[in-house]
Amino acid sequence: MAKGQQKVTVTFLGGVGEIGKNMTAIECGGDMIIVDCGVAFAKEDSPGIDAIIPDISYIKQNISKLRGIVLTHGHEDHIGAIPYYTDELKSTPIYGTALTIGLLKRKLERNSKKCNLNVIAAGDTVKLGGISVEFIRVVHSMAGACALNITTPAGTVFVTGDFKFDNAPIDGKKTNVRRIAQVGDKGVLLMLGESTNIERKGSSNPERVVGKSLEKIFMDNASKRLVIACFASSNHRVQQILTLASKYNRKVVLAGKSMKAIVEVASDCGELNVPKGVTVDSVGKLLPHETLILATGSQGEPLSALKKMSKGEFNKINLGTNDVVVLSSTPIPGNEKSVYDVINDLFRKGADVIYDSMNDIHVSGHAYEEELKRMLTLVRPQYFMPVHGEYRHQFKHMQLAKSLGVLSKNIVIPNIGESYGVTAKGIKKHSNVPSGNIYVDGVVLEDGQSVVNDRRSLAEYGMLIVLAAVDVERGVIVGDVDIVARGFNLTDEVEKSIRAAVIEGVNSADLDKADVNEYARNVKKSVRKLFYRDRQFPIIIPVIVKD
Amino acid sequence: MAKGQQKVTVTFLGGVGEIGKNMTAIECGGDMIIVDCGVAFAKEDSPGIDAIIPDISYIKQNISKLRGIVLTHGHEDHIGAIPYYTDELKSTPIYGTALTIGLLKRKLERNSKKCNLNVIAAGDTVKLGGISVEFIRVVHSMAGACALNITTPAGTVFVTGDFKFDNAPIDGKKTNVRRIAQVGDKGVLLMLGESTNIERKGSSNPERVVGKSLEKIFMDNASKRLVIACFASSNHRVQQILTLASKYNRKVVLAGKSMKAIVEVASDCGELNVPKGVTVDSVGKLLPHETLILATGSQGEPLSALKKMSKGEFNKINLGTNDVVVLSSTPIPGNEKSVYDVINDLFRKGADVIYDSMNDIHVSGHAYEEELKRMLTLVRPQYFMPVHGEYRHQFKHMQLAKSLGVLSKNIVIPNIGESYGVTAKGIKKHSNVPSGNIYVDGVVLEDGQSVVNDRRSLAEYGMLIVLAAVDVERGVIVGDVDIVARGFNLTDEVEKSIRAAVIEGVNSADLDKADVNEYARNVKKSVRKLFYRDRQFPIIIPVIVKD
Repeated sequence: MAKGQQKVTVTFLGGVGEIGKNMTAIECGGDMIIVDCGVAFAKEDSPGIDAIIPDISYIKQNISKLRGIVLTHGHEDHIGAIPYYTDELKSTPIYGTALTIGLLKRKLERNSKKCNLNVIAAGDTVKLGGISVEFIRVVHSMAGACALNITTPAGTVFVTGDFKFDNAPIDGKKTNVRRIAQVGDKGVLLMLGESTNIERKGSSNPERVVGKSLEKIFMDNASKRLVIACFASSNHRVQQILTLASKYNRKVVLAGKSMKAIVEVASDCGELNVPKGVTVDSVGKLLPHETLILATGSQGEPLSALKKMSKGEFNKINLGTNDVVVLSSTPIPGNEKSVYDVINDLFRKGADVIYDSMNDIHVSGHAYEEELKRMLTLVRPQYFMPVHGEYRHQFKHMQLAKSLGVLSKNIVIPNIGESYGVTAKGIKKHSNVPSGNIYVDGVVLEDGQSVVNDRRSLAEYGMLIVLAAVDVERGVIVGDVDIVARGFNLTDEVEKSIRAAVIEGVNSADLDKADVNEYARNVKKSVRKLFYRDRQFPIIIPVIVKD
Repeated sequence: MAKGQQKVTVTFLGGVGEIGKNMTAIECGGDMIIVDCGVAFAKEDSPGIDAIIPDISYIKQNISKLRGIVLTHGHEDHIGAIPYYTDELKSTPIYGTALTIGLLKRKLERNSKKCNLNVIAAGDTVKLGGISVEFIRVVHSMAGACALNITTPAGTVFVTGDFKFDNAPIDGKKTNVRRIAQVGDKGVLLMLGESTNIERKGSSNPERVVGKSLEKIFMDNASKRLVIACFASSNHRVQQILTLASKYNRKVVLAGKSMKAIVEVASDCGELNVPKGVTVDSVGKLLPHETLILATGSQGEPLSALKKMSKGEFNKINLGTNDVVVLSSTPIPGNEKSVYDVINDLFRKGADVIYDSMNDIHVSGHAYEEELKRMLTLVRPQYFMPVHGEYRHQFKHMQLAKSLGVLSKNIVIPNIGESYGVTAKGIKKHSNVPSGNIYVDGVVLEDGQSVVNDRRSLAEYGMLIVLAAVDVERGVIVGDVDIVARGFNLTDEVEKSIRAAVIEGVNSADLDKADVNEYARNVKKSVRKLFYRDRQFPIIIPVIVKD
């Protein structure tokens, strides 16, 4: 079969039309690979949920074709779902760079799970059936990030992964522009490009900018204790902070479990260099001016070190007027309130808090508009699909690709669950595959969507239990009607109306077929009607006992 | 008594340490006035709540002293709580400018309520017992905003209200800098200054900037239908849009109830001028290029016109590729997700959406840092209290006042419920007064805090009803244990454990005093323990029936 007639099939199980939960299946001939397998974090519309993971029914249906999982980098939204699917994926080889696999290994060990893990280096190519995957180094906010050059019998699929360009990264490991250009020159059938920062004009700031701003803070506050919060996984950021601590003779206290763990993993795999003179220590009897506390909690996470410090609940560290706290981060959309709550509390304790993006204490790990242009110009794909973003990001990325010469008919904005067959001659949409949100609350929830829907109703309107003993033969209530309300304003007046509605419900039951279920159904209907008038929808649970 | 020995007491019932719900009581001698009486909007931590209003117990306790309510302007966070307190406040005269009182009147009428409303003009002074209040014009995002020059026997209290400086406002009515300077020259004892935008450097953009950006959009899209969403209450914005519609020969369709109502109120009181040639019309058979739809919903509000259009549910208006939608707004913190959901859906319908703050299609109505400096420099108060902001805003405003020469000891960051006595000789904290959140969900909730707490638990963990019939004499369960779960993952395994816990609970009851309540208590305890191990806290409701 000539190359032009083979097709590569790309199926989106997450990471499109939403932020997070990245997972894409790529198939050609009888072989399938998966790119990434991440979580999304819960939003206000899924209360009490720890994480949301992709539905992998489609993978299970095609498990015999699955040759391997390739991971672009080690962030949660790219690797976080794997521990939940170890039963299904236990024999599938998983490939990633040292830090990616190191972080995944730690996650698996904490959950007493095992996978077939394989460390590769940037530049390596792995063969997975008829598909081969070359890992090409890119810069991102953590080390070990790679774009993927996926060669199939039907042509090349280029996956950018999360990336940015940075001409002088902290570890000297630049995005491999030359290799990406070579891949582009040879001809790319399809490119999947990340869209996160398409709305930001120009180019992203280099990571070194943050080092300069932080150094000024070290110099300006030589007599004070310093607390810096950042993502533990941002190893370039952590590196700069450790280097500054060494230069300014401060001992480093690591605060927060994930900070300790990730520093260890990153050091072990050579992606973090703890300079001489830096002792990682407990706060003990350190003097303020010789202390640097490196903490988790830059997003105001409930159980993080910084959150606890802001509440005065963190082991031995009591912040006050001699402390300067730096949030080297920007609130992820949706986290604003949590972050500002922490900042307010830190100010209340008398600490000075530096958190403004105007202070250049954070830069993004995702390419801005000009960098996305550069990538598209290097790769020059025949077909283009914008991924990793809400619809507005994908839409704008599509417009950008058009403006750079990709034909309109060759651009598709994929949605979750969609599957496309791509050949040199055209692109064809297949039928959708099962997809959506699988909710994790401690464990993977069975029928999680209805659990979440119920929680939303409970949160919005509360609930109501009406309890009555009914003489089922005669169709009358015996004794009192009990009403239990939670998250619900039960005034005397409302209570009276409910009692009346319960009686009406019992009366409306069909005496012939009247068992407790028939009474319960009618009572629920009658009570629901009462609230529906005021557009209130509490969850109503009738408990009818046979007298 | 010499002036220096009299004291003025300022009590904060809202609007400090938080955004919204502004309400301050000012007392001197036997006279009290209230400045503003607003709502706060519900956040994710108060699900299903329509509004949060101040606790006015302190006002009720001192109602005999109350001489009047003065309103700085007509935004919800300054007037919105009044309709809930008409019983308590019905005989108290309320003063505000025409638009403020016009909007309040409409709110009251919709709720069939009445108050003693009094329209004053900027520049007027009202005498309220021994206290006199001069309304001084300031620029804000709506017309009729005033700062208050409050003269008491103990000295002058200057309240900035919400304000900005704008040298060329749309209606030509500038902040009355000359009068503020005069008040400052005469000597101000205490200033309450709004802090909202203290974190923004420089000065706010003037409203006219938006007009220019919008005009470019009119010109660039001459053949398309235009939809512009903004706050209905931003009458200067609405004015500019109507003027542009006239200039570019577009008929205006008002979409959304509050847009229609506020346009009417603002026109009636002379704060909005509907230019000749603009017909406020239904969309009917208008051609795209002759249509401008002015819509509510710039914050993605659930029932707003723009939200409905994004879902294809708005009466007769079906958006598509020939539409340009402009969100002339910026998401209020906490509304980001709702706003971006609407934007994503509009893009999905094929419309072009312009929403970026980089397009200069919105400016803030609140003073930036340099403007706050200017205000402090004009007023030069002896004492200063930063208000209207989270703690971080108040803290930074305090730092600003210090840098401008206000003595540290003369600055207080007030918290909600705090009351201060101020004389020329010093400032003294009194005991706190009742304060906090009163929740409104359709009606004012009785014991709203526990309703909201329950809703949060229900949202986070769900609920569980366990139903058992117990032979109370013998202490044994008769028949089956029924379990009803909502918002909760009831696996077979969990169900089994719950049954065991119920039996254990019944067994642990004291047979001597065992009535149904004793059994219920023990069952609840036992089941709760089961979940506590996994740090899960569902609401557990035991229903024990006497067999």
